[in-house]
Amino acid sequence: MRPNRHSPIGVFDSGVGGLTVLKALRARLPKESTVYLGDTARVPYGTKSGEVVTKYSLANARALMEHDIKLLVIACNTASAVAVPALQAALPIPVVGVIGPGAEAAVHSSRSGQIAVIGTPGTISSGAYQRALVARRADVVVRTQACPLFVPLAEEGWTDGQVPTLVAQRYLGVEVLGGVDTLVLGCTHYPLLRDVIAQVAGPTVTLVDSATATAEAVASLLEKHGLLGDAERPTRRFLVTDTPARFEQVGARFLGEALHEARQIDLHLT
Amino acid sequence: MRPNRHSPIGVFDSGVGGLTVLKALRARLPKESTVYLGDTARVPYGTKSGEVVTKYSLANARALMEHDIKLLVIACNTASAVAVPALQAALPIPVVGVIGPGAEAAVHSSRSGQIAVIGTPGTISSGAYQRALVARRADVVVRTQACPLFVPLAEEGWTDGQVPTLVAQRYLGVEVLGGVDTLVLGCTHYPLLRDVIAQVAGPTVTLVDSATATAEAVASLLEKHGLLGDAERPTRRFLVTDTPARFEQVGARFLGEALHEARQIDLHLT
Repeated sequence: MRPNRHSPIGVFDSGVGGLTVLKALRARLPKESTVYLGDTARVPYGTKSGEVVTKYSLANARALMEHDIKLLVIACNTASAVAVPALQAALPIPVVGVIGPGAEAAVHSSRSGQIAVIGTPGTISSGAYQRALVARRADVVVRTQACPLFVPLAEEGWTDGQVPTLVAQRYLGVEVLGGVDTLVLGCTHYPLLRDVIAQVAGPTVTLVDSATATAEAVASLLEKHGLLGDAERPTRRFLVTDTPARFEQVGARFLGEALHEARQIDLHLT
Repeated sequence: MRPNRHSPIGVFDSGVGGLTVLKALRARLPKESTVYLGDTARVPYGTKSGEVVTKYSLANARALMEHDIKLLVIACNTASAVAVPALQAALPIPVVGVIGPGAEAAVHSSRSGQIAVIGTPGTISSGAYQRALVARRADVVVRTQACPLFVPLAEEGWTDGQVPTLVAQRYLGVEVLGGVDTLVLGCTHYPLLRDVIAQVAGPTVTLVDSATATAEAVASLLEKHGLLGDAERPTRRFLVTDTPARFEQVGARFLGEALHEARQIDLHLT
């Protein structure tokens, strides 16, 4: 079947993190059906190579295409950083990553043009945010910092108190934040640590996350392609590659509501 | 080729953690050739389901069998906790996990019979240590605690100072350690945090890790099967499923020496 405006939007992430993007999508586009795929059998992507993350991203996209999606959202910063060209080449539908919209929001937010980006090792070492920011404002100064402990802290639910504060202080020193007025939360897990990060960064730094900006970009693209949906009772499916229990349990924190009936599927990796 | 005493020992782990077991094996059996496989494209196993970990373990074992290994060491507590029966059924060679030898060492160490076990969520929820300890001493009292943040701390190299100490204090309260005289480090990453854990546990608690005990069990098994090697220049190969750079860099900390020339392979998952 050829996708039409009644078809669902496909969203994938390495696991639960992308549910923060799905939440923003639902808020902006409440009449769209969605299919979310969390690659929980291979999570996390942030410490893996671009080569492997691209392979997994293609497999996720193929699995979502079987649901006749009309547009694909890569709700994972690491996959967005390395796999957008491969996915755009492979798919006959529009593909939206989170990095372009996130960079757009950061450039709008910053007055000084000094912007810091935090993310997984994979996202930071790819240089994707740096390129996306420079493309939008040539004189921007970008500082970056990989924060690998933020993901397990968010998944454990240790999002306030002494441990996350000390970890944030260690990552976000003056060499990262000095002079900066905008800090991009370049990983979908980090909004769960927003309060701690904001406290460490101080009141002169604006935090930007790409979820809202990505939802806005999806709305524009759907409109441009005449694909806006108007379902009264949109469907909301969840697929996972490991057994669903942990996804449903941890995912509820990210989605901000209970999460049931995720279905386990096999990806056919080549 | 049928494996003989000149064949290598195969060792697999989800990533770098099992290198602590390989290090103990090399010290105990310096004339054995080894092939180590780190499944870095799918690491970690500790937060994944038993079903998925068993599937990955079988794929790892098949890849190692192509190197004509004479014995398989599962150098990952999570895989040892869930996949030993499946691997023993599938392979024509002896299979050794780390949990039996670790439990054996703990029972020898404990006077009070009150033993605590820490590990990944997968290892702890499997109940494998609990069963292995009770099988060796019927009146043992076992307390358990999953410590998911210890793995990322060890991989980040944050193994001393305030952050790991606070994390250890939060996991290892009196409800876990009260009355206990022996604490099993039920994850191959935890020996890197040994000093912090020992300090939090206090001087009355003996820490047990399974690496040395597993090396001893391997030596006994090889002797029993007439398979002890005596190579003057044993070979030491490393295989990984993601690109080798991060494995070589992080792995050196675990092995205690430089690590070069890991080769990337594809696992054919079914």
